[in-house]
Amino acid sequence: MAELLLKVQKREKLADQLYGQILEQIVSGNLGEGTKLPSENEICASFGVSRPVVREALRKLQSDGLVYARQGVGSFVKKRPPQGLIEFGGVNDVAGLLRCFEARLAIEGATARMAAERASVRHHRDIENALSRLENSVAAGDIADKADFDFHMAIARASGNEIFLTILNSLHGVMQKSMNVALNITRAGSAERAKRVLAEHRQIYDAILGRDGESAELMMRYHLHQARQRLTDHAREM
Amino acid sequence: MAELLLKVQKREKLADQLYGQILEQIVSGNLGEGTKLPSENEICASFGVSRPVVREALRKLQSDGLVYARQGVGSFVKKRPPQGLIEFGGVNDVAGLLRCFEARLAIEGATARMAAERASVRHHRDIENALSRLENSVAAGDIADKADFDFHMAIARASGNEIFLTILNSLHGVMQKSMNVALNITRAGSAERAKRVLAEHRQIYDAILGRDGESAELMMRYHLHQARQRLTDHAREM
Amino acid sequence: MAELLLKVQKREKLADQLYGQILEQIVSGNLGEGTKLPSENEICASFGVSRPVVREALRKLQSDGLVYARQGVGSFVKKRPPQGLIEFGGVNDVAGLLRCFEARLAIEGATARMAAERASVRHHRDIENALSRLENSVAAGDIADKADFDFHMAIARASGNEIFLTILNSLHGVMQKSMNVALNITRAGSAERAKRVLAEHRQIYDAILGRDGESAELMMRYHLHQARQRLTDHAREM
Amino acid sequence: MAELLLKVQKREKLADQLYGQILEQIVSGNLGEGTKLPSENEICASFGVSRPVVREALRKLQSDGLVYARQGVGSFVKKRPPQGLIEFGGVNDVAGLLRCFEARLAIEGATARMAAERASVRHHRDIENALSRLENSVAAGDIADKADFDFHMAIARASGNEIFLTILNSLHGVMQKSMNVALNITRAGSAERAKRVLAEHRQIYDAILGRDGESAELMMRYHLHQARQRLTDHAREM
Repeated sequence: MAELLLKVQKREKLADQLYGQILEQIVSGNLGEGTKLPSENEICASFGVSRPVVREALRKLQSDGLVYARQGVGSFVKKRPPQGLIEFGGVNDVAGLLRCFEARLAIEGATARMAAERASVRHHRDIENALSRLENSVAAGDIADKADFDFHMAIARASGNEIFLTILNSLHGVMQKSMNVALNITRAGSAERAKRVLAEHRQIYDAILGRDGESAELMMRYHLHQARQRLTDHAREM
Repeated sequence: MAELLLKVQKREKLADQLYGQILEQIVSGNLGEGTKLPSENEICASFGVSRPVVREALRKLQSDGLVYARQGVGSFVKKRPPQGLIEFGGVNDVAGLLRCFEARLAIEGATARMAAERASVRHHRDIENALSRLENSVAAGDIADKADFDFHMAIARASGNEIFLTILNSLHGVMQKSMNVALNITRAGSAERAKRVLAEHRQIYDAILGRDGESAELMMRYHLHQARQRLTDHAREM
Repeated sequence: MAELLLKVQKREKLADQLYGQILEQIVSGNLGEGTKLPSENEICASFGVSRPVVREALRKLQSDGLVYARQGVGSFVKKRPPQGLIEFGGVNDVAGLLRCFEARLAIEGATARMAAERASVRHHRDIENALSRLENSVAAGDIADKADFDFHMAIARASGNEIFLTILNSLHGVMQKSMNVALNITRAGSAERAKRVLAEHRQIYDAILGRDGESAELMMRYHLHQARQRLTDHAREM
Repeated sequence: MAELLLKVQKREKLADQLYGQILEQIVSGNLGEGTKLPSENEICASFGVSRPVVREALRKLQSDGLVYARQGVGSFVKKRPPQGLIEFGGVNDVAGLLRCFEARLAIEGATARMAAERASVRHHRDIENALSRLENSVAAGDIADKADFDFHMAIARASGNEIFLTILNSLHGVMQKSMNVALNITRAGSAERAKRVLAEHRQIYDAILGRDGESAELMMRYHLHQARQRLTDHAREM
C-alpha cells in the first residue's frame, strides 16, 4: 500500500501544480469569469500531463467553487479570486490551502462543540487571551497569524481530547500559512471586512463561554466557510 | 506554548494511567455497577496524584459513559465493560483507544460523505476489496485489523482530500490497536455480533456506491458509535 | 400565492399517482431490476399527462432510490420494493409515505436530541411505556402502529417544544399509515428483522435515558433511515 | 391521549404567560442583568401558580438564554432583550415566538439543503423575487414580513417535498409574527444591522443557486440563529 500511496501523492502533486497554473490565469483575468476553459485534450497537450492529472485538477477547481462543468459542453470559470490569493499564497500551494479548510470544517466543528461542553475556566482564559491578541493586532494593522492559530489551538485544547491537538499540530504549517494569506487579504480590504473577521471569532468564543455546544459548532463552521470564501471570491466583501 | 503543551500532556498521561487503574477495578467487578467511587480526596491519597489529575480521570470516565456523577454526592459506576477491553487493550492504553473513536466520528463522518460524492470507479473497487478481505477474515475466525484499517483508509482516499489521509495515517497506531481489540472481543462474542459488525461496514460501502453522501455519513457515524459501545458495554450484544 | 400553491399541489397529486403506477409495475416485476423505463414522451402519451408531471414523478422515484438516470440515455429500475409496500400502502399513497420519512428525519432528529437534554422522569416513563407496548405487540404478532406512533409522540413531548408536537400531530395520518405498512411488512419477514426493529427503538430510548443528545439524534436518524429502506428494498433483511 | 395533550397544553399556556411576565420585568430593567430571581416558592405564591408551572417557565427562560441557573443557589438574569421584543411581540406571545425559531432551525436547515440539490430554474426565480421584494422594502423603511415569509416558503417549495410546505403553512401565524417583530426591531436599529439581515438572506440564496447543499443548510441555520439572537440580545448589533 505504501507504494500506491506514493503514486497517488505524486499524481496529486502534479494535479495541484496544474490547479495553480490554471488558477493563476483566472486570477490575472487572462481567463475571465464565464470563459470556457480549453478541453481536457488541449490541457493534456499544453501542460504535458496525463488525462487523470487534468481531471483531478479540474475536479478540485470545481469542488473549490472556482470552475463549473456543463455536461457535454466543458468547464467554465465561475469566479475570480482576489489577487492576494496567489500573491501571498504562491501558485503551487493554493490548492493545499483550500483543501485545508475542508478538513478543518470537520475537525474544528467538533472541537468547538466539545470545548463549549467541557472547557474549564482556565481554558476560557486561554481562548480569550488569544482572541485579545488577535483583536489588538488587527487594530494595529499587523498580520496576526500566530494569534489566530493560538485561538484555534486553545479551543482544540479545551475539547479535552488531545488527539485533536495532535491533528491540528500536524496541520500547523498549512493552517498558519492560510491564516497569513487570509489576514494579508483582509488587511488590504475594507475596515468593515476586518470587523467581520473579528466578529466571527468573538461569536465562537461567546458560544463556548455560554456552554452552548450547538451554537459553538455552528459559529465555527460559519467562520471557516466564510474564511474560505474570502480567499476565493474577489467580489465578496463580507 | 511548546512547554505548556508538554505539561498538559504529562498531566493527561497521569490521568490516563489513573483512568486505566479505575477501569480495571470496574472490569474486574471489584467496583460493581451502581457502586460509589471513593471521594476525590481519597483517590488523591491512594494514588499519590494531584486533584487536577483525579478530576481529569473522572471527567474522562464520565465522558466515556463508564461513570456518572451526582451533583454533591459523588461518582458512581455506570456500566461494566467486557473483560477483553483490558485483556486486549492494556490498562494504560484504554483511555486513548476510546478517545480515538471521538476524533474518528468527526473525521470519518466527513470522509464517508465526500467519498460518496466524489469516488471514482477505481476507488469503489479499492473499498470493496478491503471489505471482502474483512469479511473473509471474520468468517475464518481471524483478526482482520489490517483489512479493517485498509477499508477506512480507502474511504479517506476516495474523499479526494489528501489531508484526511495524512490525519488517519498519523492515527494509524491507535486506530489499528482499537480495531484489534474490538475484533478480538467480537471473535469471542456471538456469531450474530460478528454479522452485525460486517453489516455495518457493508452499509457504509452501499451508501458510497449509491453516491448518497448523507447516508454514507450517517452509516459511518452509526458504525463508529456502535464500535465504541461494543468496547465499553459488557451487556451489549449488537 | 394561494392559487399558485393549489396548482402546484394538483400537479404533485397527478405526479404521485403516476409515481404509484410506475412503482406498481416495478413491484410486480413487470419492470425488472435494471430495465429501462419508457421515454418521457412515451409516458406522457400512455398516461395522458403533461411532461412536467412525468418529470416530477421520475424525479421522485429517483430521490426515493427506486430508479436511477443515466445522462442522455434514460431512466432505469434500481431496486424492487417488497410486495407489501403496494399491498398495504396502496398505489396512490406510496409516494407520500416515502416523502414523510424525509420530513421526519429532519424533525425527529431534533426532537430526540432535545428529549435527551430536557426530558423529565415522567417523560422517560411515558416513552418507556410506549416502547413496552410496542415490544409486547410485536412479540404477539400484532400490528402496533398506535404504540409506535405514541413512542415517537412521547419523544416529541419530551423535547419541551410544543411546536414539534403540533407538527407531528398534523402528520398523524400519514405517519401511522407508514408505520402500519412497515409493521405489516416486518410481520411477514424474519424473526431477526422484527428483533432489529425493536432494537432500533430501544437504542433511541437508551440514548435519551442516558441524556446523550448526540447519540439520541444519531440513533433516531439511523432508525428512520432503516425504516424507509425496509419499505423500498426487497432484498434488505435488516 | 387527547386529554393528556390538553392538560399539557394548559400547563404550557400558563407557563408561557408566567414566562412573559418575568420577561417583561427583565426588559423593563426592573430585574437587571445578573440579578437573582425570586425563589420558586416565592414565584408560586406571587403568581398563584403551581410549582410545575414555575419550573416550566424557568426552564424555558433558561433554554432561551435569558436566565441561567446556579445549582443550589437560584436563577439569575443573563441578558436584557431589546424593548421592542415586548413592545412588538406582546407579553404573552414571546415564549411561542422564540420556540418557533428552534423548530425552524431543524426544518429549514433541511429545506435549504434540499432546495440547493433539487431546485428548478423556476424555483430559483421565485426565491429571487421574494428576496428582491425583501431588499426593496427594507431599503424603503417598510416592514417586509410578507416578503420574508414568501422567501422561506419559496425555499420550502423548492425542496420538492410538499410536507415541508404544509408544516410551514401551519406555522404561518407565528412565523410571520416573529418576522414582523424582528423587522420592527431591525428598522429601529442601525443601517449596518439592516445590511446584515439582508446579507444573511442573500447568502442562503447564493448557496441554493450554486447548488451547494451543505452551504445552504449552514447559511440557513446561521441566519435563524442570528435572527433569534437579535430578538433576545439588547447589546447585539450584528
